[in-house]
Amino acid sequence: MICGRSVAEFLQEIEKFHGYLAPGLVLGGFMVDRALELIGPGVEADAIVETRYCLPDAVQLFTPCTYGNGWMKVVDWDKFALTLYDRHNLNGYRVWLDLTSTRSFPNLYNWYMQRVPKHDLPLEVLNQTIFEAGRSVLSSRAIRLTDLFQRSKKGPIAVCPRCGEAYPTRQGDRCRACQGNGYYAPR
Amino acid sequence: MICGRSVAEFLQEIEKFHGYLAPGLVLGGFMVDRALELIGPGVEADAIVETRYCLPDAVQLFTPCTYGNGWMKVVDWDKFALTLYDRHNLNGYRVWLDLTSTRSFPNLYNWYMQRVPKHDLPLEVLNQTIFEAGRSVLSSRAIRLTDLFQRSKKGPIAVCPRCGEAYPTRQGDRCRACQGNGYYAPR
Repeated sequence: MICGRSVAEFLQEIEKFHGYLAPGLVLGGFMVDRALELIGPGVEADAIVETRYCLPDAVQLFTPCTYGNGWMKVVDWDKFALTLYDRHNLNGYRVWLDLTSTRSFPNLYNWYMQRVPKHDLPLEVLNQTIFEAGRSVLSSRAIRLTDLFQRSKKGPIAVCPRCGEAYPTRQGDRCRACQGNGYYAPR
Repeated sequence: MICGRSVAEFLQEIEKFHGYLAPGLVLGGFMVDRALELIGPGVEADAIVETRYCLPDAVQLFTPCTYGNGWMKVVDWDKFALTLYDRHNLNGYRVWLDLTSTRSFPNLYNWYMQRVPKHDLPLEVLNQTIFEAGRSVLSSRAIRLTDLFQRSKKGPIAVCPRCGEAYPTRQGDRCRACQGNGYYAPR
């Protein structure tokens, strides 16, 4: 069992949501599993994820926290680590990939440290290694949130005088796109 | 049918993933449904979402794009709009909530423009209105991406001399947390 699922269900959910069995997401599943165990049942936990790559999907699949419901926040630090914490008292656990321990699993170490080209290490082989390694390559620590725990509130909104769409007034007298920051052009 | 699902499945998936039937996500489902139709079948589409609230989960549930696989990007503009675009030729469609049309649906208008306290407009009532409104409150436009289409690549990584975790060298001589930007303290 991992994250309350059979291994088959676990892999199936990853593939359905993420599109393929990304090793970072399989490893992330073990990290979420560990963090859930540490924080214990019955705790309303929010999540912080320290990389944009793969790991956010492990949190979204295997905890109630998603990007859209605001219970998961992502910081773009490129660190393979996540925190689950009690949203009421801010106590939680950070779980991370322990590089030193990965040295016992050369496939895992070489993949994570970019020492091997992707085509030389097939997904199935790497994922097999991740299952062998499991929690033995994870470290964890009891922590208390000092930042990022704030729930963001929408401020007042108004109608942008240029495009006619609603936008938050704190952004200025027109919306971001009409200030020239758009990512698109009509065609 | 909506996003290739029965209404019952659609609602069930939202509740399972997001935790509850958030109106923004129900409305977002109609937006994704419209964008998918516009872009047509067989296109490998990436997504841009223009708000952090609710809407990213509609994209993650009803397209192959997720936050963790990098096919969905989110800009924090607080605009209720999304774009699906062909990742090869950068042509796509932007779909947004057309405020003028929502005036025919006072519940929807009042909710979106924050004219009514949450407890005065029960979820079921609002979601019922959203189903009545459906696509009639959406606008769309053919666009071409001028930015944000770049796939981010991980740069070289190294071991942080302070914490011993891997981090990207472009961030400096130690990781973000060890530079004093951490969000946690040990306990």
